Amino acid sequence: MQMSKLQRYCLFITYDGTNYAGWQVQPNGDSIQEIIEKALSTFLREKTKVIGSGRTDSGVHALEQRAHFDSCIKFSIDKLLFSLNGLLPIDIRVTDIQKVESEFHSRFSCKRKIYQYHLHTNKIVDPFQKLYRLHYTQNLDIDKIQKAITLLVGTHDFSSFANEAHRGAANKNPVRTLYQIKMIQKNHGWIFEFEGDGFLYKMVRNLMGLLLSVGSGKIKTEEVKAILDAKDRKKAPSTAPAHGLFLIKGVY
Amino acid sequence: MQMSKLQRYCLFITYDGTNYAGWQVQPNGDSIQEIIEKALSTFLREKTKVIGSGRTDSGVHALEQRAHFDSCIKFSIDKLLFSLNGLLPIDIRVTDIQKVESEFHSRFSCKRKIYQYHLHTNKIVDPFQKLYRLHYTQNLDIDKIQKAITLLVGTHDFSSFANEAHRGAANKNPVRTLYQIKMIQKNHGWIFEFEGDGFLYKMVRNLMGLLLSVGSGKIKTEEVKAILDAKDRKKAPSTAPAHGLFLIKGVY
Repeated sequence: MQMSKLQRYCLFITYDGTNYAGWQVQPNGDSIQEIIEKALSTFLREKTKVIGSGRTDSGVHALEQRAHFDSCIKFSIDKLLFSLNGLLPIDIRVTDIQKVESEFHSRFSCKRKIYQYHLHTNKIVDPFQKLYRLHYTQNLDIDKIQKAITLLVGTHDFSSFANEAHRGAANKNPVRTLYQIKMIQKNHGWIFEFEGDGFLYKMVRNLMGLLLSVGSGKIKTEEVKAILDAKDRKKAPSTAPAHGLFLIKGVY
Repeated sequence: MQMSKLQRYCLFITYDGTNYAGWQVQPNGDSIQEIIEKALSTFLREKTKVIGSGRTDSGVHALEQRAHFDSCIKFSIDKLLFSLNGLLPIDIRVTDIQKVESEFHSRFSCKRKIYQYHLHTNKIVDPFQKLYRLHYTQNLDIDKIQKAITLLVGTHDFSSFANEAHRGAANKNPVRTLYQIKMIQKNHGWIFEFEGDGFLYKMVRNLMGLLLSVGSGKIKTEEVKAILDAKDRKKAPSTAPAHGLFLIKGVY
């Protein structure tokens, strides 16, 4: 292979997370990052690391996850795109590859992130969406949920909504800005769209767990502020299941 | 359980056919009919047979398959609906149950049937639709396909598009009326909607196989009439894969 000066590239990746141990390399189980690194290293014929915009948990899906890598090897981008999709399992697809400046960083250049949580509230689950929506048939009080949302949006210490177990150094600052949680009504139920400058470990699923508890009456709206102020994960309700969650995209 | 006079009921069923050996009871493999009969027999506490509107092959999906059964047992329809969906695997759902006249027959009362075949023609497959669309990236000449469609629509002996292997007595008359094949363009590719008074064994997939062969230039449009007239399955191109096919509904 021909060499040139070091070049940074950005991969645009979509995946069905059902069968994977999440984005980040894990000691036990296939991670999406690892599978992509393996395919990339096969094509480039040298061990190549990719850095993603952030972790997604086991079972979480992504419409557009970005990841960058560096290489001195000269290659055709079209050929790499074609080869990666040949080497990767069908539930992980690279949709685009772009040359980027060396200042670009998938994680640090990302200004905002958008996630969606999909809820199926009809009595009967849709078998074609069983892997992509949480089936939730308890009555939900939408007014209460919307009131809770107004208490959560803004710049806060979100420690009550961050799982500690796998927290890395980057998560030491628990302050994040949540720009909005938009509720989109569908025939089958609701989509909750979360937009923030970043999210702590399992934060979207933990916020979703709280909203479901508020909506179903297990927790009063008045308690939301106290839960947030407690800065203690143990004070907040349980985490919503992974399979309803999609990383929609990062905004750069 | 309380008894009453014999009553006929109609089940409305939707299923993801990926993991099943098709609708009809098979010696080797789980059929959807069998699984439903088992659940129904568990609820009614007596062996109960269901009769579907028609067979779907292994891997074919259904949005609304109807099936009827008879019972002398008195029960609440709401309770049966709830129990069946509890007993059935999540990829088979009963969406409605209705009392019907004893003259109603899922198969013989069905006047027309609508199937859709879903084609994903974008270069990169959508991982979330991998089980529900045929990924087909060869160039398709739509004009040629539409010309072939006009030759196929109408009342014909469709023997060239009927697999013989499992033909039952009911398929001895190979004449069917194909009312239309509608092509619906989508962002991801095409949906082919087939509407007819009935379809022979594997007929939709065999017609789809022909249309793909015409569109990709493997077969000339002029050959379509000869293939139809041959009344010989061996003269027609191969069967399109099952996973892109949906039984949309029967019209009664």
